[in-house]
Amino acid sequence: MRNFPIVKSRRLRSTPYTDRIEAHGVSSYTVYNHMLLPASFKSLESDYHHLKKFVQVWDVAAERQVEISGKDSAKLVQLMTCRDLSNSKVGKCYYAPLVDHKGLLVNDPIINKLADDRWWLSIADSDVIFFAKGLAAGKKLEVEISEPNVNILAVQGPLSDDLMAKLFGEKIRELKFFNFQYLEFKDRQYFVARSGWSKQSGFEIYVEDNLAGQDLYDYLFELGKEFNVRAGCPNLIERIESALLSYGNDFDNRDNPFEANFDKFINLDSNVDFIGKEKLKKIQQKGIERKLMGVKIDHDKIDMYCEKTLLDDENNIVGYVRSAAYSPTFKKVIGIAMINKPYWDAKTQFKIDISEKIFVGKICDLPFI
Amino acid sequence: MRNFPIVKSRRLRSTPYTDRIEAHGVSSYTVYNHMLLPASFKSLESDYHHLKKFVQVWDVAAERQVEISGKDSAKLVQLMTCRDLSNSKVGKCYYAPLVDHKGLLVNDPIINKLADDRWWLSIADSDVIFFAKGLAAGKKLEVEISEPNVNILAVQGPLSDDLMAKLFGEKIRELKFFNFQYLEFKDRQYFVARSGWSKQSGFEIYVEDNLAGQDLYDYLFELGKEFNVRAGCPNLIERIESALLSYGNDFDNRDNPFEANFDKFINLDSNVDFIGKEKLKKIQQKGIERKLMGVKIDHDKIDMYCEKTLLDDENNIVGYVRSAAYSPTFKKVIGIAMINKPYWDAKTQFKIDISEKIFVGKICDLPFI
Repeated sequence: MRNFPIVKSRRLRSTPYTDRIEAHGVSSYTVYNHMLLPASFKSLESDYHHLKKFVQVWDVAAERQVEISGKDSAKLVQLMTCRDLSNSKVGKCYYAPLVDHKGLLVNDPIINKLADDRWWLSIADSDVIFFAKGLAAGKKLEVEISEPNVNILAVQGPLSDDLMAKLFGEKIRELKFFNFQYLEFKDRQYFVARSGWSKQSGFEIYVEDNLAGQDLYDYLFELGKEFNVRAGCPNLIERIESALLSYGNDFDNRDNPFEANFDKFINLDSNVDFIGKEKLKKIQQKGIERKLMGVKIDHDKIDMYCEKTLLDDENNIVGYVRSAAYSPTFKKVIGIAMINKPYWDAKTQFKIDISEKIFVGKICDLPFI
Repeated sequence: MRNFPIVKSRRLRSTPYTDRIEAHGVSSYTVYNHMLLPASFKSLESDYHHLKKFVQVWDVAAERQVEISGKDSAKLVQLMTCRDLSNSKVGKCYYAPLVDHKGLLVNDPIINKLADDRWWLSIADSDVIFFAKGLAAGKKLEVEISEPNVNILAVQGPLSDDLMAKLFGEKIRELKFFNFQYLEFKDRQYFVARSGWSKQSGFEIYVEDNLAGQDLYDYLFELGKEFNVRAGCPNLIERIESALLSYGNDFDNRDNPFEANFDKFINLDSNVDFIGKEKLKKIQQKGIERKLMGVKIDHDKIDMYCEKTLLDDENNIVGYVRSAAYSPTFKKVIGIAMINKPYWDAKTQFKIDISEKIFVGKICDLPFI
């Protein structure tokens, strides 16, 4: 695949950390929520091996926040998601698929409950703010909706607890998964959550002050030397191996949450009101005809810039791979694919065209084992 | 400014023409509506000179359509825009700022009226589909909202009438600005509008069939040889010279339509109902404190990846440049800037830091003369 430079502009926003990640050797970008998101540093594979062994600092400012506050904020947040938030607690993070009136997916944010009347939706790559604004205007809800100046730094990797403890103190080791707290470093308070877009453990620091974030970035590298810290970013290989889904890649507004395996975040029996509820009940009754599964392909590389068709021996469509990368762990190309119902048995074999050659692969369950 | 490659993925969608523009020498990309949009071919200046003299074919599939149809479609479309569409006619295109409940800008699409109950919003770079879906769900409107598979080819430049007449017949010369018709070429019907994101005259062909579009692309080059046709794209220099505004660059959801000089598209006295109306009335009464104007700077280059501050002699903030490029015509850097009220007099002088050197410039009216 040829390389094409990205043209920067105000519309593809830089982050408070862009100068720093460029000094640290970022080697490619993607665009996410109208913002630059680093895609690689040394190389995808080198970054991958390092992430699984040490600790990395990520500029994930592109994970923008939609802040919803005010009297009707809990009602509006609940209207957008099929996950029952009626027992949600301040200080916790909730992974919550958002659905439209057809029961189709709009985004899959982490919803942070800051107070009973103040929420941050930490969003994937779609303009949730306009969905919220449209709904609020249509229902005449008393809410404030904005995109605050929050720019997340993620600290990810098996040594992330050690590095973070050096900055924020030993008590950070007790912070539970998908919980957040305000913690102090050099007389400043930082919103720190145990979360992140890898399964190598780690934290996300929701930075509300640009200069404080830049300082923090530099301290993380200064104090992280002994842990072999490097600049990194969400890693395509690691996130597929970990079956972390990506809105726009693995699923989008043409898919419903059952098809994306979000069953445990779909609460149709509770009393809460959300806009796609009746549609999702119908979809559940009828049953789905396709769903996301894993694939393993006997090859050592793949370029993905659109979904690729999987065929059976008689050239019937098995499904479509939507993300894929070569995995040094499985020594195969692994991917996430939307698979048609007749082929849901794991180990079903298929053919795929990669760069005009035919390769074979097998369907598997997620997560990969 | 260093070059960084863009990493393609399904999330940054390719278009039906991507293979063709890469064969024609695209040299950089931007991302627009989650899709690849070419940003240059030979060079920004070479493309600019060619566009002003000959004819170019542009892959602007990234100008996505939001289709709104059904019984309440006219009502929903009107709810989203401050432009009075009550006398709108089928076959016409309407440039229409969209505003939220605070009277802030959401997008500035061209609204194509296909029928009284079927509309295409040809959008700039934000997810209007979710604004529409939120509003429709909130108001319980009877509408269908979707993103159809429409991939626009633009034919732009002073020789565009000559080229298009060779394909679609001489009658195309009579098609008026911001009107569209279905026209035939090789037994197929194409939706052709006289419009486009340049002021060099031209057309946009809303292609509804990928293969037909690819054929058309090839025919445009085959039949365009005598007009020195080239592959091109919206050109930063030309669009700034022509004062064509860009959502995300020149204005965004923090700006209102008065600040963006959209006064003639704001109809507050008509009876139509749109959601930001009361807010815009208040803004109008109070008057605005800043607005978009032009700037000319005595220098020959500028890199823009965030807005740049303009200062007066006493270091007070004059405003912020949001887009800028060197213009070979004006032999200066020209730009579009949000200027504070005390500095609205054209010819006001300011200082600007470009690559750590101070240059001087002057404010001017738009369009540039």
